[in-house]
Amino acid sequence: MDLYRAIAQAQADHALCLDNDELERWPDFFREDCLYKVTTMENHKLGYEAGVMHAFSRGMLIDRVTALREANIYERQSYRHLLGQPAIVETPEGADAETSFLVIRIMRDGTTEMFASGKYLDRYVIEGDRPKLARRLVICDSSRIDTLLAIPL
Amino acid sequence: MDLYRAIAQAQADHALCLDNDELERWPDFFREDCLYKVTTMENHKLGYEAGVMHAFSRGMLIDRVTALREANIYERQSYRHLLGQPAIVETPEGADAETSFLVIRIMRDGTTEMFASGKYLDRYVIEGDRPKLARRLVICDSSRIDTLLAIPL
Amino acid sequence: MDLYRAIAQAQADHALCLDNDELERWPDFFREDCLYKVTTMENHKLGYEAGVMHAFSRGMLIDRVTALREANIYERQSYRHLLGQPAIVETPEGADAETSFLVIRIMRDGTTEMFASGKYLDRYVIEGDRPKLARRLVICDSSRIDTLLAIPL
Repeated sequence: MDLYRAIAQAQADHALCLDNDELERWPDFFREDCLYKVTTMENHKLGYEAGVMHAFSRGMLIDRVTALREANIYERQSYRHLLGQPAIVETPEGADAETSFLVIRIMRDGTTEMFASGKYLDRYVIEGDRPKLARRLVICDSSRIDTLLAIPL
Repeated sequence: MDLYRAIAQAQADHALCLDNDELERWPDFFREDCLYKVTTMENHKLGYEAGVMHAFSRGMLIDRVTALREANIYERQSYRHLLGQPAIVETPEGADAETSFLVIRIMRDGTTEMFASGKYLDRYVIEGDRPKLARRLVICDSSRIDTLLAIPL
Repeated sequence: MDLYRAIAQAQADHALCLDNDELERWPDFFREDCLYKVTTMENHKLGYEAGVMHAFSRGMLIDRVTALREANIYERQSYRHLLGQPAIVETPEGADAETSFLVIRIMRDGTTEMFASGKYLDRYVIEGDRPKLARRLVICDSSRIDTLLAIPL
């Protein structure tokens, strides 16, 4: 298995999952026992536990998708993710990866803006022949995060 | 042949061809019998055939380059493409690839703006040892596309 | 050695080095005898030697980092690099690579802007098992470069 390639592909697929509004398959990128957290660089450096968005299991991710589908708020917007190459360090169970991202937000009226930039700090474990996320920390560069963040980053 | 690598390289080279104003070699990224279309996500989902820009053969692409060189309008601007990793599915003839893009436009006076974001839906076929585009759909996220689109995206 | 992969990884690591404010390890991406220059597309095409920022050896890069740490000006800002796939041509000593970039700048108050776009023209040589930069030309698309450029691009 080419671990670097597998992770780069998983990240590309993950980004398209969100950008194509295929949220139902989003939780499947994660391991059952996982951590997903969106926070700011400043809070991350200060060691704050709380995030703008967080989940501690795949079940919580599924709940989030259900809530989004029922609330239907997010339909007025979509994302476009641009990712850099992952910088990878192999671990006994898989790999840790650090990857820069930029998210563009497109509102229904066609206006487009830089919504968020930052980096993913990912921990991948291999399950079967796929790398799954045991942990994804989404570290946003700016302290100005939209606290009404709807769609995962 | 490493298909993923070959496609990632072809896409990087294609983007630089446009950004470096080397349009004369642009048609050569396509197969003789090909489809190139720029459209919006909304029109794509609605199944509309028409695009903001389209060509049905390599000959039409060559014509477009000639027209651009004669009109000379586009010289006042240039592009910078940023591409994500392609998400690839192999096919008997080559591969289908879905790839996010962001295009920055730089005007002659130095002003810079996010011009377009979206994704490429590409169909590659292997000719000799090179992947050639049998089809490139450029799906722009925003419905606000510059209808005076000059340089291909 | 997979040269393409090694260069893609070196570029990703280099970008994170700058974005994570780990400037002390920046000079180590370069060969002792090297050229680092930031310039504009216009000046590059006109063949001008001078750049907005330049260094002719690793020692000068080290000096620059020291000056930045003492001046402390740059602390009010950080960068986020997004890089495309490198387009690579192998050479007897390593490879030449052309790579598009976009740099986002984040000010301490949280405001975010597109700071620079352009391409890297890199010359890599293999030293031990690592590709090192013998030359990095940072060609910025816009002629409007911040002449108070503090952190390397």
